[in-house]
Amino acid sequence: MMGDPAGVGPEVCVQAIASGALDAVCRPILIGERAAALRCAKLYGIQRPVVQIQDPAETASDPGAIRVIDIGNISPADYTVGKPSAAAGRAVVEWIRMGERYGAGKRIDGLVLGPVDSDSLKLSGIVRDIDELQPPGTFMFRVSGNLRAVPLTEHIRIRDIPATVTKERIVQVLRLLDESLRRWGMARPRIAVAGLNPHAMFEEDRDLVAPAVEEGRRLGIDASGPVSPDSVFRMALEGRNDAVVTMYHDQGQIAVKTAAFEGACTIYMGLPFIMLNVPHGTAFDIAGQGKAQHYSILAAMKTAAALASGRGFLSDAPVH
Amino acid sequence: MMGDPAGVGPEVCVQAIASGALDAVCRPILIGERAAALRCAKLYGIQRPVVQIQDPAETASDPGAIRVIDIGNISPADYTVGKPSAAAGRAVVEWIRMGERYGAGKRIDGLVLGPVDSDSLKLSGIVRDIDELQPPGTFMFRVSGNLRAVPLTEHIRIRDIPATVTKERIVQVLRLLDESLRRWGMARPRIAVAGLNPHAMFEEDRDLVAPAVEEGRRLGIDASGPVSPDSVFRMALEGRNDAVVTMYHDQGQIAVKTAAFEGACTIYMGLPFIMLNVPHGTAFDIAGQGKAQHYSILAAMKTAAALASGRGFLSDAPVH
Repeated sequence: MMGDPAGVGPEVCVQAIASGALDAVCRPILIGERAAALRCAKLYGIQRPVVQIQDPAETASDPGAIRVIDIGNISPADYTVGKPSAAAGRAVVEWIRMGERYGAGKRIDGLVLGPVDSDSLKLSGIVRDIDELQPPGTFMFRVSGNLRAVPLTEHIRIRDIPATVTKERIVQVLRLLDESLRRWGMARPRIAVAGLNPHAMFEEDRDLVAPAVEEGRRLGIDASGPVSPDSVFRMALEGRNDAVVTMYHDQGQIAVKTAAFEGACTIYMGLPFIMLNVPHGTAFDIAGQGKAQHYSILAAMKTAAALASGRGFLSDAPVH
Repeated sequence: MMGDPAGVGPEVCVQAIASGALDAVCRPILIGERAAALRCAKLYGIQRPVVQIQDPAETASDPGAIRVIDIGNISPADYTVGKPSAAAGRAVVEWIRMGERYGAGKRIDGLVLGPVDSDSLKLSGIVRDIDELQPPGTFMFRVSGNLRAVPLTEHIRIRDIPATVTKERIVQVLRLLDESLRRWGMARPRIAVAGLNPHAMFEEDRDLVAPAVEEGRRLGIDASGPVSPDSVFRMALEGRNDAVVTMYHDQGQIAVKTAAFEGACTIYMGLPFIMLNVPHGTAFDIAGQGKAQHYSILAAMKTAAALASGRGFLSDAPVH
C-alpha cells in the first residue's frame, strides 16, 4: 500500500521496487494510485514500466514492471503533493482494507503499509486516528535490530496500565508471540517477559507476571521473567533473548526508538498473513522533490518477504 | 569511597589512581581500608606507595602516593574476598557518611562511591536496602553518553506513579536541575520534560506537565515539553536537549541502560558537593583475581572532577 499519495510513500515504493533488490525474494504489487506511481517513476528517472493490473495474480509482460492495482478512488486533481487531504485519507483506508482482504483470502502473502498522514485520516472522517486502523485482536510487534518487543496494550494512560496487566493477557501474548516467531522461521524462540515495576520487585511482578511465565513454560514456550524492565532490552541487544513481552507501550518503545536501528518496522501480530509498516511518516516537507530515501521501506519489504516465507528475521547487515 | 572491600571496588580504585590519568585534574583520596588498598596495589603490581592520612588536607611526601583515610572500622580478618559480610556492610555505610560530612563541610569537592553489595548491607542491619543510602532531598541524575535523565521518583510501583506527578514536583526538579547544570558548567542548559503518558497525549500531560514547563520558562529555564517519552531520549542522543526530566524511574532508566555508553554514572543531585557512583557492582565472582577493569570508575572520577570545578560534562571521547 503506497501510503498517502501526497507524501513520500509512492516515491519510496517505486524506488524500492526499481532497485531490483526485491526481484529474488518476492513479487511486489503496489496498491494505490497509478498516476502517483507514474509521477514518482518519472521524478526518479526510473526505467521500469508502471503497469496497471486488476488482480494480484495478474502478471505483466515485462517481468520487471512495477505492477499497480488502482481501484480508481483518487486522482491527481483530488489532492496537492505535500498537503493532507480528505481524499487521500479515504483512499488509504480503502487501500488498507483491500490489502487486508487479499491477505485474509491468501491472495497475497504480505502487506507493507507505506506512510499515512493522521491529518488526512481525520479529514476523511472515516477514522479519528491511526490507532483505529489496527486490526482487532492484533498486537504491535516492533523490531529494531536485535530488539523485538510486543506490548500488552498501546496508547492508554499510565494510570490505566495496572488493570490491564493480567496473567491471562500475558499468557495470550506469550502464546501468540511464540507461535508467530516459529511460523516466521525461528526454531525455538527465547521470550523474555518484562516485569511491570522497577526491577520487577513488587506484587504484580510476583503475583501476575511470574505465574504467567510459569504457565508459558508449561505450554512448552521458552519463556523467562519477570526481568527487570531496565535490563531486558540490553539483554536483547546482546542476543540473550529473541523477543520481549512488555507490560505497556512506552516500556518497549522507549528502548526501540532510543536504539533506532536502521530497518526498524512494526508488524501487526495475530493475522494469518504478514502485515507491517515503516517507522517514517509522509514527510510532506520533502514530498515531490526527488529527495526521499527508500531504504526503510525496502528493508520492511525484505522483512515481510523473509517472514512470509519462514526465513526468519534478516541479519543486521546494512540494507544499502 | 572504595566500596565493599571484599569486591572489586578497592582494585579499580587503586588502578584508577595509579593510572596517572587523574594527576592533572584532582587530588584523589581513598576512604576505606588501607590493608585492602595495599593488597590490591600488590595484586596489580602498582609502584605508587599506599600511605595513610588522617585528614583530607594532609599531603604525602610522595605527590604520586595513593592516600587512604582508614578509620580502623574493618580489618582483613572480618571478611573474605568475594563474599558479602556484615562487617563490610557496616564499614561502607560509615565511610559513605564520613564522605558526606567531608562534602558538607567543604573539606572535599566530590565523593565517588565504589560498588557496595546489597547482601553486605542487609547483613549489617543498618540499612535494609541500597535505596536508604540516598541522601534525603536528592534526585538521581543518570548520565550515559549524551543521555542525561533525572526522574521524579525512584523505586515505586507503576500504580503509585500518577499520584506523584504534580506540577510542584516537576517545577522543583526543573529548578534544581537547571541550577545544578549551570553550577557544573553548562551555560544555558536545554531541559526537556517527558510526558507521563504515551505520546504525551492525555490529561496529566496537558494539565500538569505542560503548566510546569510554562512555570519553568517563566523562571528563566530553557524548558520544553511535554515531549513524547519514546522520542525524548533519541532527541537527547542527537544533541537536541541537554537533560531530561522523567516522570518515573523506568522511563529514563530503560533508555539509559539500553544505550549503555561507556563512562555511565549516577549523580546525587541536590547536594552542595558532587557525589556520584559507578554503574557496576562488586563483581564478587572475579574479586581478588587481578581481572577487574578500572575504566568505569576512572570515568566517574574524571566526571566528578570536571563537574566540581565547573568544567561541564566530559566529551564522549573514549576513556581508554
